[in-house]
Amino acid sequence: MDEQEDNRQQFNVRPIGIVHRPGSDAIPGLFFDPDQESMIVIDSLWESALTGIEEYSHLVVLFWLDRAERPENAPELFQPDGRDNLPSVGLFATRTPRRPNPIGMACPRLIRRDGNCLHVRGIDAWDGTPVVDIKGYAPRDDIRADAQVPKWLDRLWKTHDEERAARG
Amino acid sequence: MDEQEDNRQQFNVRPIGIVHRPGSDAIPGLFFDPDQESMIVIDSLWESALTGIEEYSHLVVLFWLDRAERPENAPELFQPDGRDNLPSVGLFATRTPRRPNPIGMACPRLIRRDGNCLHVRGIDAWDGTPVVDIKGYAPRDDIRADAQVPKWLDRLWKTHDEERAARG
Repeated sequence: MDEQEDNRQQFNVRPIGIVHRPGSDAIPGLFFDPDQESMIVIDSLWESALTGIEEYSHLVVLFWLDRAERPENAPELFQPDGRDNLPSVGLFATRTPRRPNPIGMACPRLIRRDGNCLHVRGIDAWDGTPVVDIKGYAPRDDIRADAQVPKWLDRLWKTHDEERAARG
Repeated sequence: MDEQEDNRQQFNVRPIGIVHRPGSDAIPGLFFDPDQESMIVIDSLWESALTGIEEYSHLVVLFWLDRAERPENAPELFQPDGRDNLPSVGLFATRTPRRPNPIGMACPRLIRRDGNCLHVRGIDAWDGTPVVDIKGYAPRDDIRADAQVPKWLDRLWKTHDEERAARG
């Protein structure tokens, strides 16, 4: 860690719960299955703070990618997803888990709440991943209907679709 | 801090930059102005990792609400925005900055990038707020077009619009 880092204020993140997704670690080269149901189990300490969350159809979930290697400074540019037909970019232009602060975000559908347990569909996190914040998904703040992405990302999504279709 | 908290793993967040928004602290009872331009100044350590971010029209910015009081356990339910015509809910059902991990999220438009400086429009954070992660906004992951919110939130948004219109 260099001087610039040492001199900065740092903050402490305390997990409020974990992602429970049985079996997901057993799948080699795990592909995100948008339809898989998983659970977010919130510590009993925070259960009452969930009151009213069940009126949202979707959540914003922030989680700590605790198994990701954490760079100490900007790594070399790289081709997203390791695809050699894509341009090299910096980590912030990608969703790589290898980030200075490895905070993942997902916007899953909330199927139902059972006390401190949120049943969701569409969270791309391994079993046991620590959860650090939950918010209701709010279209007015969170939808950017006119958002444009780099051409390479459109191409990558198309490739993912084709590969998923080929797997059947 | 109780035993349950003490026994848990904790994580360390290192800011990667700050929000620069001159004058915003001077506005009493600051209302979010969606059209205000502000800057995100990324530490030179991470500048090269921004390569390619300029091809996104919008960003997902995670920032640390460093001036927010941080609860040690679930506080009493409360009426959002202090409005006595709204139901009492838990903190996770709101965007209050008083969260166990005070991580704010905004999806601003990226106007342009000048080296380590991102000029954006639509970030609701005070001047000097530490930034902890930047991602490109990706419609496929981040838009939930069919999202529904609690009735009270629709009412609150309408009230905000009326109050904004009344101020001219």
